[in-house]
Amino acid sequence: MTMTALRRLEALPRAESLRLLSTVSLGRLVFTHLALPAIRPVNHAVTGDQIIIRAYLGVAISAVVGDRSGTVVAYEADLIDPDTHLGWSVIIVGRATRLTDPAEAARYRELLRPWLVDGRDDIIAIQADMVDGFRLVETPA
Amino acid sequence: MTMTALRRLEALPRAESLRLLSTVSLGRLVFTHLALPAIRPVNHAVTGDQIIIRAYLGVAISAVVGDRSGTVVAYEADLIDPDTHLGWSVIIVGRATRLTDPAEAARYRELLRPWLVDGRDDIIAIQADMVDGFRLVETPA
Repeated sequence: MTMTALRRLEALPRAESLRLLSTVSLGRLVFTHLALPAIRPVNHAVTGDQIIIRAYLGVAISAVVGDRSGTVVAYEADLIDPDTHLGWSVIIVGRATRLTDPAEAARYRELLRPWLVDGRDDIIAIQADMVDGFRLVETPA
Repeated sequence: MTMTALRRLEALPRAESLRLLSTVSLGRLVFTHLALPAIRPVNHAVTGDQIIIRAYLGVAISAVVGDRSGTVVAYEADLIDPDTHLGWSVIIVGRATRLTDPAEAARYRELLRPWLVDGRDDIIAIQADMVDGFRLVETPA
């Protein structure tokens, strides 16, 4: 890119945002832990209006989601070119619940590749209550 | 990768975490807006113990950081291979302040490439109070 190339934000419809989210397997779960903002990279699958994640990265996520069904979290995935800074980002905000039904959890475990050999392995569903997607597109300088 | 390849987390020292952060230009700012978790992709520069970001992506960030100097935010950047899921992630938690000194803001503006043609352009400094870096390394199945 040239230094004069600039971008503008183009809002994406909900369906297109969820479709883009389903084309990548990595994203970031955002939640509040001990009154502080927290974020962890995880992998995900999209099924209908839900984002399913397999949470390993520590006690923090389980403590937040596990105890209070319906805790509001955010989830973000993007594909932005490091050089041109063109691409897209999708942000979900919604209620997260741990899937406690063993059959349901087992079904999603198959969709989601394991990350780690150790650690707890909770399957968490995030309801896509709010979907905010945008594309960074080039605009004439 | 084979389906049996698994990863383990290797904690990274603070200095190495900040060094890795400085090797990429994109990350995600995490904050609380209207009592909900919020996240926005931004670009950054690392200078000493501070992460400097150029915030365009809306009123939300400015409203959070602008009014209350020292608001605690999180910042995350990663480089994780979408196929192998190997790579690293660095998470910063610290106080964010808007740089109001015009000379200082102008200096950082030069470090940070502009993203968008429109929108507010605030330069925000995040103090790296807590640095949590890890590497995902392959482990024998």
